[in-house]
Amino acid sequence: MEGVDHLAHERNKTEFDVDAMKIVWAGSRHAFELSDRMARLVASDPVFRKDDRTRLGRKELFKNTLRKAAHAWKRILELRLTGPCVITEEEAGQLRSFVDEPSFTDLHWEMFVPAIKGQGTDEQQQKWLPLAYKMQIIGSYAQTELGHGSNVQGLETTATFDPETDEFVINSPTLTSSKWWPGGLGKISTHAIVYARLITNGQEHGVHGFIVQLRSLDDHMPLPGITIGDIGMKFGNGAYNTMDNGVSNFDHIRIPRNQMLMRVLQVTREGKCVQSNVPRQLIYGTMVFVRQTIVANASTALSRAVCIATRYSAVRRQFGPQDGGMETQVIDYKTQQSRLFPLLASAYAFRFVGEWLKWLYTDVTQRLQANDFSTLPEAHACTAGLKSLTTAATADAIEECRKLCGGHGYLCASGLPELFAVYVPACTYEGDNVVLLLQVARFLMKTVSQLGSGKKPVGTTAYLGRVQDLLQCCCDVQGAEDWLKPSVVLEAFEARSARMCVACAQNLSKFEKPEDGFAELSADLVEAAVAHCQLIVVSKFIEKLQQDIPGKGVKQQLQNLCYIYALNLLHKYLGDFLSTGCITPKQASLANDQLRSMYSQIRPNAIALVDAFNYTDHYLGSVLGRSDGNVYPKLYEEAWKDPLNDSVVPDGYHEYVHPMLKQQLRNARL
Amino acid sequence: MEGVDHLAHERNKTEFDVDAMKIVWAGSRHAFELSDRMARLVASDPVFRKDDRTRLGRKELFKNTLRKAAHAWKRILELRLTGPCVITEEEAGQLRSFVDEPSFTDLHWEMFVPAIKGQGTDEQQQKWLPLAYKMQIIGSYAQTELGHGSNVQGLETTATFDPETDEFVINSPTLTSSKWWPGGLGKISTHAIVYARLITNGQEHGVHGFIVQLRSLDDHMPLPGITIGDIGMKFGNGAYNTMDNGVSNFDHIRIPRNQMLMRVLQVTREGKCVQSNVPRQLIYGTMVFVRQTIVANASTALSRAVCIATRYSAVRRQFGPQDGGMETQVIDYKTQQSRLFPLLASAYAFRFVGEWLKWLYTDVTQRLQANDFSTLPEAHACTAGLKSLTTAATADAIEECRKLCGGHGYLCASGLPELFAVYVPACTYEGDNVVLLLQVARFLMKTVSQLGSGKKPVGTTAYLGRVQDLLQCCCDVQGAEDWLKPSVVLEAFEARSARMCVACAQNLSKFEKPEDGFAELSADLVEAAVAHCQLIVVSKFIEKLQQDIPGKGVKQQLQNLCYIYALNLLHKYLGDFLSTGCITPKQASLANDQLRSMYSQIRPNAIALVDAFNYTDHYLGSVLGRSDGNVYPKLYEEAWKDPLNDSVVPDGYHEYVHPMLKQQLRNARL
Repeated sequence: MEGVDHLAHERNKTEFDVDAMKIVWAGSRHAFELSDRMARLVASDPVFRKDDRTRLGRKELFKNTLRKAAHAWKRILELRLTGPCVITEEEAGQLRSFVDEPSFTDLHWEMFVPAIKGQGTDEQQQKWLPLAYKMQIIGSYAQTELGHGSNVQGLETTATFDPETDEFVINSPTLTSSKWWPGGLGKISTHAIVYARLITNGQEHGVHGFIVQLRSLDDHMPLPGITIGDIGMKFGNGAYNTMDNGVSNFDHIRIPRNQMLMRVLQVTREGKCVQSNVPRQLIYGTMVFVRQTIVANASTALSRAVCIATRYSAVRRQFGPQDGGMETQVIDYKTQQSRLFPLLASAYAFRFVGEWLKWLYTDVTQRLQANDFSTLPEAHACTAGLKSLTTAATADAIEECRKLCGGHGYLCASGLPELFAVYVPACTYEGDNVVLLLQVARFLMKTVSQLGSGKKPVGTTAYLGRVQDLLQCCCDVQGAEDWLKPSVVLEAFEARSARMCVACAQNLSKFEKPEDGFAELSADLVEAAVAHCQLIVVSKFIEKLQQDIPGKGVKQQLQNLCYIYALNLLHKYLGDFLSTGCITPKQASLANDQLRSMYSQIRPNAIALVDAFNYTDHYLGSVLGRSDGNVYPKLYEEAWKDPLNDSVVPDGYHEYVHPMLKQQLRNARL
Repeated sequence: MEGVDHLAHERNKTEFDVDAMKIVWAGSRHAFELSDRMARLVASDPVFRKDDRTRLGRKELFKNTLRKAAHAWKRILELRLTGPCVITEEEAGQLRSFVDEPSFTDLHWEMFVPAIKGQGTDEQQQKWLPLAYKMQIIGSYAQTELGHGSNVQGLETTATFDPETDEFVINSPTLTSSKWWPGGLGKISTHAIVYARLITNGQEHGVHGFIVQLRSLDDHMPLPGITIGDIGMKFGNGAYNTMDNGVSNFDHIRIPRNQMLMRVLQVTREGKCVQSNVPRQLIYGTMVFVRQTIVANASTALSRAVCIATRYSAVRRQFGPQDGGMETQVIDYKTQQSRLFPLLASAYAFRFVGEWLKWLYTDVTQRLQANDFSTLPEAHACTAGLKSLTTAATADAIEECRKLCGGHGYLCASGLPELFAVYVPACTYEGDNVVLLLQVARFLMKTVSQLGSGKKPVGTTAYLGRVQDLLQCCCDVQGAEDWLKPSVVLEAFEARSARMCVACAQNLSKFEKPEDGFAELSADLVEAAVAHCQLIVVSKFIEKLQQDIPGKGVKQQLQNLCYIYALNLLHKYLGDFLSTGCITPKQASLANDQLRSMYSQIRPNAIALVDAFNYTDHYLGSVLGRSDGNVYPKLYEEAWKDPLNDSVVPDGYHEYVHPMLKQQLRNARL
């Protein structure tokens, strides 16, 4: 059955132009073509094979990652020389992302290089960037410590200026100050940006980054005074175990003064600290950038999981007609649809909000360059909140997709266990999700408190300027189809969020010390922040639909997905909507009816909607999600590759099982 | 700092008698002593060491499991000979459970032996059980097929009676009929109960179990006509990869007629089918048994995760005072409490509902023996629903506990990744959770439809007999403390469930064909079933509190946990409560205030409440959850054991990294 499309009957049902949808998903024709080209390049190269990954022991796995990283770099260099066009940084990044295996190069390109660019002086950039660009040095980013995660101000590593030698002394004073987690640090990086408390003349000056060489460029041995290693196994087979997250301790290591990143604060030859005229807000600009990337990655991870679960739900049959005919495709069950289709809708919703965040970052950057910091707090709150919302939803969704595949989802061959294990750290890194939501809540409370003073809220908080209207508005839905009006949906989400914010603000005001109130009510505040962030996603999806979207039926499908996204949230968070009184139980029940009818409309297009992600079978890495739907023969084939099947009688049988069966165990030494 | 209790300051805060709570948790003094003894026996035996499990490759891991299984059996035999008392089946089971490593023996004792007991004739039991009890044969349970999971009636394997030889011919007619998943089948079992469609004289007679020998008892080679192997890697490091879940195909294998399990249906020498006078309902009795075990296991898995997360939340500090003092323990943050404490409460709630289910099983068994089938449907629905509810909640909770440990929860050393990966199949096996909830819903709809006819609902559905009252009742809570009345909480949950059931029944009645309605409204029906099951858990917790519970302060703590469990559900499913009108938004807000205040009351007792589970550090298997709280030095120590740290310069460096750094890559062959 090789070459047969077992999902052809599904694809024949499609009511829209899939190629046009591919362009919408990719963002532009150019983006589509680039990613399509890079994906195929990687998929066709046997070095990038990854179907054996979950079977490899740690050392083999890691060695294989080194091989792939070197090969990817080689292919990038080749493309630069011979490609139809000069390969850009973006294209190189795409190639790496399709290799789909965490490695030390991620830290090098995504953290080390940007940190030097963002925090290094021009001189420092001129010295270090060419080395990094050519990979003559390999960098890591060493912030987190064994005893200190989210709270950067709690870091213990010190960098003490020694004016006699014009050097900084980097030191790990305690066990808990060991650097812990930095990727690439464990076995590979030659350098790292090490974050440490700056001390000059006996005074502390906050936490700053220092370029520290870790290993010899000749024999790769750690430099004297540096203890360094891998922190051990992490969640899942394959997954992040391809990365050498590391631990390191510094025993009074000396580095030249000019290896402190000094764009914002300079330490002079005498050890005096001088603030530069570069605004500190730049750091927030970088955060906006990093977090918008995380949101984009959330839509990618989620769409991969949804693609696998949707295709397999069409292949898999369970129960059904009693007359002995074929069993029913599980995708036809409403219970399956009501779990799967909201996730499909979320993949698209996160894609579009990610696209918008990219625009927001450009906008913020331009304003920063013009010394306009006015939109920065709102942009910062917005990206923090969306990072939290999308990563938490995506992590849950991947696991839900795994469950939607039934028992076979538990096999590594489904691709879903590894996708989950490799994804979940996103909920913790770059800001723990709950901590970020509290930041959003703080910003919302500030916005509400300033309403009286006439300060007009901007951007995604603009609706709070209409808070009086929103506190009084009544939803006027009378029939299920009234829920298909964008204004109705938007108003319901705005009213919910506004009322939750106002309720929190009122409860906070009952406390004498605001900080006590904030601590006591933090769980409620988190919920208000979530409501606000969901509103952003819904509103950006609706805005997307206002645009001109070419392609037969494409807009119709997106509209359906938008309503599924919004109405499913309304159902899931019904308590919020009802308790703030913005809709009635009867209206909620109508929304539910409408939601069910959307599921029926999406159903025939489900396979085409995941085809539009344009993922190669290599990238998906899932037997269940194969594009041709030929699941069972391939699953069967895959099983025999397990190391346990190398021999018919397993190693250990003679020592341990045979004596048991023959009752010769009692006196055995085990 | 070896030997110091870093959590002593927490334990000093305890307001109740922890030893008394240990007895309550265990169920009785006898149960406590047994489990304490077995846990220590396993923990002190170096063969049962498991801290290296996540670092082992598949073959090594599997061989090690065989070693442990043989050693456990040896210890059991020794105890039988020399122990202070003769070891019972229950004690042997406890010992195996503390070894805490899935293996072929699980299937042997928990599926193979019970199947022969339950479905075999007296003669069959006399022949096979002694062999199984001595482990002279090792059995598996082969039901699931590659293309068929939950739907037993869809199985394809055939067992055709051949009257000429008085044998059954077992055959796998298609690829999708391959047996797939059975534990132990892959490499170890010598026998299996194989489920197949019985065919005699050209007629089908449903699916039945057949005892099939798989491998030679001499050299362990598969018998002719049997293809057999392991199905490959599953989710997680260690975890279920210690189990040889298997695939097998039968090519017209012949077995004697007396190897069909014939307690319920007999096939005569002539190939005629004769129904015995043993009631078919027995099967449901067995299901009640198996599922009550699953509920008990849910509380165990959940409590382990909660124990780890609670202890580490007390050890870990993040942010806090600006004055440079110690950072705040994360357990003191309300956001942490509002996520953690409901899980702690759930662990206790599931424990008590599991205890009650054990009673229910005894009750059902006694009734069955007296030919009283009246309570069976209700007992069956109830266990099906509770299996679904508790396993789904536990799987989510373990992952939530992992997140509550921050970044370090992602390390295998935290124990949580493996606990999650090994637990999640419980949501799928022994009845997919959604399929089970639909069975509950079907039973509820039947119960509601029979209310008019005067048929009185029994057991956990008795409240539906008061449906008229419940449809009209108004919650009379006026202050937060009114939520501490058991009757108020119970009525709110009863009213919510009753109203959801009635609403579903009304909506169903609008469909011409009931089956169409059931399919279309299945998502709503599932929600009604969940509401009903949550009510059961709440009501059994409240019933538990009516009992006499000795020990200073013990009952008070349990009361707090009960209200946390109930009020947190009320908050989480607020949409249900509000839309069915059983409470008002104002009352919901008061419930939330009360919930917050319960968190403060539980807080000083949190560590003692997880100490009461009486888990050894061996069993917990978590550096973060260590009883002495000495987390960071041990985490640091653990890191160096990773295979990657065997050498300073990693394997692969010279081939792949050095050429990159030296820019000699371009012409390299990778």
